[in-house]
Amino acid sequence: MIKKIIKNYKKPIFLYNYKKIIKNIKNIKNIKNIKIFYAIKSNYNKNIIKELNKKINGFETVSIGEIKFLNKIGIKNKRIIFSGVCKKKRDIKYAIKKKVSMISVESFEEINKIKGKIKIILKYNLNLKGGTKKEITTCKKDNKFGIRSNETNKIIKFIKKKKIKIYALGFHIGSQIKKVKYYIKAIKSIEKIKKIYLSKGIKIKTLNIGGGFAINYRKNKVFYYDKLWKFLNKNKSFNNFIIEPGRYITANSCLTISKVVYTKKVNKKKIAIIDIGMESIIRPALYKSVHKIVNLYKRIKKYHDIVGPICETTDTFQKNKYIGIKKGDFLIIKDTGSYCLSMRSIYNMREKPLEVIIKNKKIKVI
Amino acid sequence: MIKKIIKNYKKPIFLYNYKKIIKNIKNIKNIKNIKIFYAIKSNYNKNIIKELNKKINGFETVSIGEIKFLNKIGIKNKRIIFSGVCKKKRDIKYAIKKKVSMISVESFEEINKIKGKIKIILKYNLNLKGGTKKEITTCKKDNKFGIRSNETNKIIKFIKKKKIKIYALGFHIGSQIKKVKYYIKAIKSIEKIKKIYLSKGIKIKTLNIGGGFAINYRKNKVFYYDKLWKFLNKNKSFNNFIIEPGRYITANSCLTISKVVYTKKVNKKKIAIIDIGMESIIRPALYKSVHKIVNLYKRIKKYHDIVGPICETTDTFQKNKYIGIKKGDFLIIKDTGSYCLSMRSIYNMREKPLEVIIKNKKIKVI
Repeated sequence: MIKKIIKNYKKPIFLYNYKKIIKNIKNIKNIKNIKIFYAIKSNYNKNIIKELNKKINGFETVSIGEIKFLNKIGIKNKRIIFSGVCKKKRDIKYAIKKKVSMISVESFEEINKIKGKIKIILKYNLNLKGGTKKEITTCKKDNKFGIRSNETNKIIKFIKKKKIKIYALGFHIGSQIKKVKYYIKAIKSIEKIKKIYLSKGIKIKTLNIGGGFAINYRKNKVFYYDKLWKFLNKNKSFNNFIIEPGRYITANSCLTISKVVYTKKVNKKKIAIIDIGMESIIRPALYKSVHKIVNLYKRIKKYHDIVGPICETTDTFQKNKYIGIKKGDFLIIKDTGSYCLSMRSIYNMREKPLEVIIKNKKIKVI
Repeated sequence: MIKKIIKNYKKPIFLYNYKKIIKNIKNIKNIKNIKIFYAIKSNYNKNIIKELNKKINGFETVSIGEIKFLNKIGIKNKRIIFSGVCKKKRDIKYAIKKKVSMISVESFEEINKIKGKIKIILKYNLNLKGGTKKEITTCKKDNKFGIRSNETNKIIKFIKKKKIKIYALGFHIGSQIKKVKYYIKAIKSIEKIKKIYLSKGIKIKTLNIGGGFAINYRKNKVFYYDKLWKFLNKNKSFNNFIIEPGRYITANSCLTISKVVYTKKVNKKKIAIIDIGMESIIRPALYKSVHKIVNLYKRIKKYHDIVGPICETTDTFQKNKYIGIKKGDFLIIKDTGSYCLSMRSIYNMREKPLEVIIKNKKIKVI
């Protein structure tokens, strides 16, 4: 199939596999009373979003720009959660006016800005570890995310006075959380907070467990969370659950095909210069992330650096990789369906890659 | 002036000072026979480029996208150098067809792809240090840039056989080169290569010393290279020089005004969440770079983290900065005229900042 697709190769190709997206959604669906809201910041392809729209409950957004984008491609506001740590008053006003379904509140101050009808999710910073890299943790108290636990009493006083209803409690413990135990710890922690609300007569029945579900980039596989789903199915503190995955649904559904334009010799190794770089896939440069890379053709293996076309040394995919590469070869970069093109920059003004999906054995440019 | 500009503040503002751009150009101009080609990848604002076009010799580009962009805003191809490590055959063909003035060749293979009339610059990788961060060095032999010295004989054979003329020799020793000695070392090294060409009857009169000229981000100042200009003025190996600065001309000509939307308490410090982030200024997240940040207002100083609005912990400008900040304040981020908006991404779909220039005491949106 890939050999067919590269026949008229002109520029890098992002190739999605519809089946994998569906499989990833099914991995989550065996929990009762769960609603899936896809975090669209992980992928902005409108066709992918439209496909997802048929299979899940809605979308999590982090800016008015994202809400407007969803509206433009036909997604209704009742299917949208509005999140983000930096909502301005006018942003909140806009979301309420447009009847966005829910708002994830990240601080006490924010509740104050809500005037009108919208379902409120109180997103807590539980000061927990997620066993994740420092750069992508979001639930330690020294980072910007979430309501601090010690603000609870202040919030209760305020919402009782103003007669504000709370729809859900929530948390977000980071990205790439590989172990179920971190979610369970967070749930137990938020159950305590729920009890504080309940002791003041405030009933909250829904829990938003956020995102953070991991994939294994080295092995091109998703992690499985069956123990967590079991835990949620048995849970008696909450009746309903919301989940906001991004990477988990689309990352491993896509691979990138890129051509080796030049090779250069350096002592015992070679450098392969490919036609895609940090303008479209910034994760290796920004987080030192590793994407699995294979050659479409079989070659005698040698040590290679694999680098992009951008005028920056940072633009490096892998150093000293044991792989066979010749000029003109096509390399396959795996797991590029999330946080790649959605982080694309205009730097160096390179051509936008082609996006293609395989669905029901048919190839379609999207 | 800034207080006047923020009067109707709606979103972050990039504020350029025309005077500073002119001053930076003048810092270079006291060399005889030098031609300045601005590296446009450092700033894509079309008004800035048009202003520069009146004052310098032309522009250095790294992709066909950049060439097309310059053409679109009225810059002629005779004022363009085409560089980059990943030029495809069709890119070179396009540049020649459009009569781009010069091409910077980065490997032996590339010369092979040149069919037609264009001035050739042979850009060497001299395997030298530039005293710079590993991430931004470009002249060590294990990185992708430049022709390797040991390819010289092969090149000479080839160009004699094909009757190809060479217009200039060149090098690029990295970014943020703070000491003149690195340039002088590189010039001495390239003079030896020139002699090899000369010994085979090939005269090359022009030297392209590339870019890499530094600014001091902590002090919001440019470095000065008077010793280098003197050295070039006395140089007898070459008659003409080309220089390709980017950052040196525009970085310190611009500052960014951003509003503090929220503050959060963390033990002894506070977090200030501002309305611009890594989507527009990625240098702190990508290179751990520090931009000087001051508050427009005077406050009692405390320890603050300054973070952006993006849903990433990486989106941090400075940790534990001793500065006074209150909600609603305006922070001034200095030296944002290069490698900020030209690296802007669509991530989180935030609004594009406003760009404004002060020229002859007048404020103009650009």
